[in-house]
Amino acid sequence: MPIAKAYAVHGPADKLAPFSFDRREARPHDVQLDILFCGVCHSDIHQARSEWEDSIYPMVPGHEIIGKVTRVGPDVTKFKVGDLAAVGVMIDSCRKCRNCNNYVENYCIESMTGTYNAMERDGKTIAMGGYSTLIVTDERYVYSISPKLDPAGAAPLLCAGITTYSPLRFANVTNGTKVGVIGLGGLGHLGVKFAASFGAEVTMISTSPSKEKDARKLGAHQFLLQTDNTQLKKFDSYFDVLLNTISAPHDYEKYLNLLGYEGRMMIVGLPSVDPKVRPFALLKNRRSITGSMIGGTKETQEMLDYCAEKNIVSDVEVIPMQQINEAYERMLKNDVRYRFVIDLASLKN
Amino acid sequence: MPIAKAYAVHGPADKLAPFSFDRREARPHDVQLDILFCGVCHSDIHQARSEWEDSIYPMVPGHEIIGKVTRVGPDVTKFKVGDLAAVGVMIDSCRKCRNCNNYVENYCIESMTGTYNAMERDGKTIAMGGYSTLIVTDERYVYSISPKLDPAGAAPLLCAGITTYSPLRFANVTNGTKVGVIGLGGLGHLGVKFAASFGAEVTMISTSPSKEKDARKLGAHQFLLQTDNTQLKKFDSYFDVLLNTISAPHDYEKYLNLLGYEGRMMIVGLPSVDPKVRPFALLKNRRSITGSMIGGTKETQEMLDYCAEKNIVSDVEVIPMQQINEAYERMLKNDVRYRFVIDLASLKN
Repeated sequence: MPIAKAYAVHGPADKLAPFSFDRREARPHDVQLDILFCGVCHSDIHQARSEWEDSIYPMVPGHEIIGKVTRVGPDVTKFKVGDLAAVGVMIDSCRKCRNCNNYVENYCIESMTGTYNAMERDGKTIAMGGYSTLIVTDERYVYSISPKLDPAGAAPLLCAGITTYSPLRFANVTNGTKVGVIGLGGLGHLGVKFAASFGAEVTMISTSPSKEKDARKLGAHQFLLQTDNTQLKKFDSYFDVLLNTISAPHDYEKYLNLLGYEGRMMIVGLPSVDPKVRPFALLKNRRSITGSMIGGTKETQEMLDYCAEKNIVSDVEVIPMQQINEAYERMLKNDVRYRFVIDLASLKN
Repeated sequence: MPIAKAYAVHGPADKLAPFSFDRREARPHDVQLDILFCGVCHSDIHQARSEWEDSIYPMVPGHEIIGKVTRVGPDVTKFKVGDLAAVGVMIDSCRKCRNCNNYVENYCIESMTGTYNAMERDGKTIAMGGYSTLIVTDERYVYSISPKLDPAGAAPLLCAGITTYSPLRFANVTNGTKVGVIGLGGLGHLGVKFAASFGAEVTMISTSPSKEKDARKLGAHQFLLQTDNTQLKKFDSYFDVLLNTISAPHDYEKYLNLLGYEGRMMIVGLPSVDPKVRPFALLKNRRSITGSMIGGTKETQEMLDYCAEKNIVSDVEVIPMQQINEAYERMLKNDVRYRFVIDLASLKN
């Protein structure tokens, strides 16, 4: 069986440390990837530290995976050896419910199988993620990556990218839509790029005036400092769509008030404290709050093809695997623009 | 000027008491109604007692008004003397914004003018509601009522009716839609009737087992006792649409979990404590929470015509004006099935 070199965490208080484990032999529909890059998602930290209280150890995090195909099972049709390919947040789902049949496997009625911190559907194998040198996955959950894209910058598209692309598409963001992106981090910076590429008028909404310059560079047309009540008033009932990427505790009301008639706030951030909603603020303008969770296999491939066409990638800082613990600490201080990506060459020799 | 006999309240701690005041002479586009019946809405109590902290006194509440046309201005086209007609929650709006132009004046960008507890758009006249013997209103905000409908039962359609009809239409409730109506009161009982009439599979969701029998009589096909966790589990991710009519403090999460893929919870209740929302519960199934506030003039007339066709009216208890203070006390104890309606004959002699 192919042996993966990796970094793993063994308990909520542990740091990530070198680890190795067996991947399965490729089954008929499997693709084996030599992993080139893996993005570092904020949810990696939450899960490594069991902050969502559902952690399975040992854990090899990582679900923003770009690699090169090194082996394909005999029934694989989409890939051949040497192709660039990617694995995202899920590696399986029930494949028979209505949502799986519609390729929104992320909303699988039996629940999708995560790329790590999950039991595979055999009920006994712990799924191990992309902080590792190779992965073996059913081709349904593997995506084609254009060689036109920078592979390190493309890695975060697999989670941060689809997490922001899907809700903007769902909310019908198009030419002239007034979009506010709340929060400028790994998610927000891709939200700005996507919304601007769709032709929207994009406003970055942030608590930090220092973000304005960067936001404009990423494609934002306006900046709203949400701690300034005069500015908030100016944007009262202004937006068609808000993309809320905030994971820090906050209430929804302040943002709801910015939505115009039939405006939608799309939620992709997961604060640990449940936000409050003022019903009056929902009734006014017939506003909506809608959750969105990554995307299905069909939309993920569509997003990756769109990124190749528009040359959209994440702004990244590439690190060797050995710096992952330091990277986590810097992420907690928002000291990254805007995504760390691990170069897995650092684990090979 | 025509003199209206009425009941008014003069301060937050006062009871309603006899009052009289001048209505304006009919302007060219005005319709004057001799009021026959006026429904008693829970928001009448909130506003009479200044529980929303925006009350203007003296206040003549009432915005579920059915009457007979006794005078029309020279430019009125929709009504003639002797017609049955109705006035609902609004009597004016800016008439020039995008929403007014689309006949969703309830979402007027400058704000609609309420039928009572509001200043008219002249900035100096206090709008007085339907706990009175007559009203004079611009015909744009007056509706035709079919003589086929029981006029007392029709009165609550003007607020409770449109408040439940509009969100069910907005959420595309149709044949086979799985609808849960949360709370069986003035709003909920009409929600059940409308949803059932649209062909939906209707489930009454209540904290009180005693409501089951009545819910089924009103058209509900199933009953979900929301204090029973086994039943809640059975309905996990089950519904397409929830109509949340609850005004008591509650959290949204328990209900969100009942929504299936792309399910929507429509909010029409206004709890005084802001409900909390668990973001995970929104992300799962790409669920939405959407507010809805009465309806525009076009949809209100459509709803009234639909009710005439389907013979839908509110279940009411008719009272004389003199019993209004007692009626308020009974409403606060949920002791009404399902709406008090004032017979204004009690103020005429």
